[in-house]
Amino acid sequence: MALDVGVDIGGTYIKIGVVDGDGKVVARRRLKTAAKKGPAQALERVARTVATLGGKRRLRSVGVGIAGLVEHEHGVVRVPPNLPGWNGTAVKLVLAEKTGLPVQCTNDANAVCIGEWLYGAGRGCDDLFCLTLGTGVGGGAVSGGKLVLGANHAAGELGHTVIFGNGLPCRCGGRGCLERYVGAGYIVKRARSRVRVQVKQLASHREQLPMFKGMHIERPSVLSDLLGGRMTTEDIARAAKGGDRLALGLVEEVGEYLGLALVNVVALFDPERIVIGGGLAGFGEPLFRSVRQMVMRRIQPLTGRKLDIVPAELGNDAGIVGASRLGRVLPGFRAG
Amino acid sequence: MALDVGVDIGGTYIKIGVVDGDGKVVARRRLKTAAKKGPAQALERVARTVATLGGKRRLRSVGVGIAGLVEHEHGVVRVPPNLPGWNGTAVKLVLAEKTGLPVQCTNDANAVCIGEWLYGAGRGCDDLFCLTLGTGVGGGAVSGGKLVLGANHAAGELGHTVIFGNGLPCRCGGRGCLERYVGAGYIVKRARSRVRVQVKQLASHREQLPMFKGMHIERPSVLSDLLGGRMTTEDIARAAKGGDRLALGLVEEVGEYLGLALVNVVALFDPERIVIGGGLAGFGEPLFRSVRQMVMRRIQPLTGRKLDIVPAELGNDAGIVGASRLGRVLPGFRAG
Repeated sequence: MALDVGVDIGGTYIKIGVVDGDGKVVARRRLKTAAKKGPAQALERVARTVATLGGKRRLRSVGVGIAGLVEHEHGVVRVPPNLPGWNGTAVKLVLAEKTGLPVQCTNDANAVCIGEWLYGAGRGCDDLFCLTLGTGVGGGAVSGGKLVLGANHAAGELGHTVIFGNGLPCRCGGRGCLERYVGAGYIVKRARSRVRVQVKQLASHREQLPMFKGMHIERPSVLSDLLGGRMTTEDIARAAKGGDRLALGLVEEVGEYLGLALVNVVALFDPERIVIGGGLAGFGEPLFRSVRQMVMRRIQPLTGRKLDIVPAELGNDAGIVGASRLGRVLPGFRAG
Repeated sequence: MALDVGVDIGGTYIKIGVVDGDGKVVARRRLKTAAKKGPAQALERVARTVATLGGKRRLRSVGVGIAGLVEHEHGVVRVPPNLPGWNGTAVKLVLAEKTGLPVQCTNDANAVCIGEWLYGAGRGCDDLFCLTLGTGVGGGAVSGGKLVLGANHAAGELGHTVIFGNGLPCRCGGRGCLERYVGAGYIVKRARSRVRVQVKQLASHREQLPMFKGMHIERPSVLSDLLGGRMTTEDIARAAKGGDRLALGLVEEVGEYLGLALVNVVALFDPERIVIGGGLAGFGEPLFRSVRQMVMRRIQPLTGRKLDIVPAELGNDAGIVGASRLGRVLPGFRAG
């Protein structure tokens, strides 16, 4: 039986998997991207790893998901924010030559969407939106049983949809983009600033009210212990799960922002299911509850009757599993 | 040669046309909807008119665009804002029985989108977004050469996408929806209030500065003549075309709001063309210029390289022409 290879090129790691006909990863390898050293060395290592992983197996195709906009015809990456020096790289042509296999490329969020659609939380859906929450926010859409690609293979870019027309300036040059409110870095920044304010307030309460000495005073957020060092969204998730009120408030706020953007997704795509993956999906039920509330409060009731908003199922494998299916999902494209 | 019938059911009029294979309307009739008298009488008259218009011609199908959300399987209308009493009407089944022809139904904005896509400003596009600006804002999307329907046939609802997350309350129950800023009624309301403020300001200038008597003072907007009576968006369009600064400012503002919503359309669908029709497209070049500026300033540059934003071409016929093609565009649906 012929197998397909899925490659997931991110800013830090490149994940490579050999995927069988049931969407199972039967062999895998993870490489450092070493993005700053440029694309040539990385793609050379990818090709060698594909050969090693393939071994005696018959490989049929290679699919690549890349963290950036991808022109599909020649698989050229455009302005990938986390792959400096890769702009303009014809990943498809280079890898096809080096591996001798047909290669297809797409945006990494599209690859994740395909994975969840075919084998994960989106199974059986003809109308699906899948988003990935992390440092950035990516998205992919399936409509009427087809992946929505767009004229430049750039559809589904949820991160830079506008939720506040006059909102905060975003690194993309726009204003009020979703990513500016729910990107992992911004969440941590907001957490730090809230915790700092809280610590100050509690300190001033203590000073001003000496008569309450020894009495119960609101405890500071557990996140205050992290103010001196590193804080991550995992820390916030853990705190929220432990019942920390400040952390919970932050998670719910993220859900509200995300919900606003998803109101627009529902209005425009009318999906039957929305799948949320990526690191921040680890915020779990408080996040999903808040997202669902915002969405249901604002959409047309008809579009909400059958709408599910659910966590992704494939975890870190979604990207390679989805990428491995590009040859089938994008049948119209020239192979290699 | 067999001909198809297109029906466009709006709150005030029902337009019916017999459409040939080239998308030409070869016979047409306009009826009053008399929406308040309910759907039965209206659909009865539609069926009779179809028979009359058909005459000795061989009619193949009837397609209906309706101002409301439409469940496609049985062509049931849901909560049509301008068709009180029509909620739940199975337009498809009723008309199929009365005409003896296969009937398909969709939302009116989808019908317009199909018309412009096949025979108007969207010809030749595989990735298209088409919007209709009037009392409400409707939209339809084509992606990869297919109409985007969504799980409830409710995709493309641009009017209730959010452009200001904490914006003005909308009649839909949400906040900051596009329609709340660019619906015809709201534009006229804004115009009146601006003109009123201007008139007051000019009067107070005149009072406070008697030494300037006889000197040049800014002239009030020509719209101030209409303050006592009816004012329409056509009046505003005419004033803007005549160079009236207040009217021009209003038109440009509408373009900016619309541009914000279209930034989201571009991010999510990545179309190669956006077609703008409906009464407000009569604002003309100042509107389009302002829309294009806002869109180009905020989208990812890659998605703007080939993007055109153009006026619709079919005018009032788009709805019937598009509806007449439903049988071909929605081949998967049961006919009648």
